Amino acid sequence: MIIDGKKLAEEIKTSLKDEVVKIGKVLRFAIIYVGDNAVSEKFLEQKKKFGADVNIDVRVYNFPKEISTTELRKKVAEIVHIDKNTAVIVQLPLPAHINAQYILDGIIPDKDADMLSSKSIGLFLTGRSKTLPPIVGAIKYIFENHNVVVLGKQVVVVGAGRLVGKPIATWLIQQEATVVVCDEHTSDISQFTKRADIIISGVGKPNLITLDMIKDGVVAIDAGTSESSGKIVGDMNAVISQKSSIFSPVPGGVGPLTVAMLFSNVVAIAQK
Amino acid sequence: MIIDGKKLAEEIKTSLKDEVVKIGKVLRFAIIYVGDNAVSEKFLEQKKKFGADVNIDVRVYNFPKEISTTELRKKVAEIVHIDKNTAVIVQLPLPAHINAQYILDGIIPDKDADMLSSKSIGLFLTGRSKTLPPIVGAIKYIFENHNVVVLGKQVVVVGAGRLVGKPIATWLIQQEATVVVCDEHTSDISQFTKRADIIISGVGKPNLITLDMIKDGVVAIDAGTSESSGKIVGDMNAVISQKSSIFSPVPGGVGPLTVAMLFSNVVAIAQK
Repeated sequence: MIIDGKKLAEEIKTSLKDEVVKIGKVLRFAIIYVGDNAVSEKFLEQKKKFGADVNIDVRVYNFPKEISTTELRKKVAEIVHIDKNTAVIVQLPLPAHINAQYILDGIIPDKDADMLSSKSIGLFLTGRSKTLPPIVGAIKYIFENHNVVVLGKQVVVVGAGRLVGKPIATWLIQQEATVVVCDEHTSDISQFTKRADIIISGVGKPNLITLDMIKDGVVAIDAGTSESSGKIVGDMNAVISQKSSIFSPVPGGVGPLTVAMLFSNVVAIAQK
Repeated sequence: MIIDGKKLAEEIKTSLKDEVVKIGKVLRFAIIYVGDNAVSEKFLEQKKKFGADVNIDVRVYNFPKEISTTELRKKVAEIVHIDKNTAVIVQLPLPAHINAQYILDGIIPDKDADMLSSKSIGLFLTGRSKTLPPIVGAIKYIFENHNVVVLGKQVVVVGAGRLVGKPIATWLIQQEATVVVCDEHTSDISQFTKRADIIISGVGKPNLITLDMIKDGVVAIDAGTSESSGKIVGDMNAVISQKSSIFSPVPGGVGPLTVAMLFSNVVAIAQK
């Protein structure tokens, strides 16, 4: 079956809308955004739309791409300390000259909806955080809704980036899966993907995972994003659905679901 | 070749002794120890001896095994806030009724020589910590001294515990190795170990890794500890040395080196 992330996101949206009404005050979600790029703009639009639908005020703080790390960190501190900002995130990627982790560490755990600060990551890793990184929440939601058990399963995570691979791998190890983490230095990822029960890819390279690289019945979750001739595409070739028991494609899979989970974290922060 | 952890630890000891003299004040290293068990007592003795050799005052705070989590956390806070305690650790394991992570989180990163609090783990994971968890420091030291490069290598980590597997796996992912994490739910670990360039085991189960499970030239690091007829033994059968290019055995391998790295962290904390 093919995961309809939009539909699942709509379900979450409906329940979040009710939660926001129950909270009974205006929630404001601040997004720090540096420079401009097409993919980021697309994601920002999705977040603004979702916010409007659930009555959360999404405010984008845009800074010029020439801003220094020091200056940006100051701005982050200011924005975090505005009481009306319920939660704060940084739209990634940041320009290469900026120390991204230092900027992310400016967000206190109590407002960190993306769970990307060192402190939030530590709390998540030691199992002391109730909220999850949105991508982890999204994949967990798919697994729970389709009775996918990870304990003891062979799970291959392709890509070890900050946003997808690292948090997913960390979570899978906690869940007692057998986890294989591949990156661009892995000589032949197919030796692992061919035996995998579950494959999660978050590289951003079209056609990285093809039909010959998977076994029948695999659970295949595409979490990669890249642009190809102006279209957003994932890491997995769409024909993978022929052999997989569950296939979450890009676009329309974990993307919308991750946005929903991000807002779910904003609501959870407001409820604390 | 077989790693002589005692010899490597002596090298570090000599240089730490000099550093302590340079610091020119008494360093005190507090160890919180609950209840009593033979393996822990052995480790405590090693730490006391190392401390005496480098002129660091090792002070053990022993509490009865019936102590509650709340009471112990209070004691941790008191001990951490004694100015004279340069660094503080908790001797693991704690009794099963105690919430171990909550206790470990009572140690502030500035005194956390074992790097086991959520905050320290977060800083380590995001690459924002200069000190490393001692077991990671020990293995890194072996690798650097024997020109073992992990980038792109296939590394199998057996066991995903708090003290060995998790920090090691995290570090290896950061170092861009291809990392396989197995635990007790993995159906057949030999399918991974047979292809591995490097195997690191931290389970605590004698004879878990045997000669037929490894390929020629593997780097095999035993970091498991268990007791068998009153003797400390590792996870790897000693005959592994016949096929491995580097073999770090238990006892006498990473154990003494990890103690040395722990004291190296104490000194680094004092130097800050």
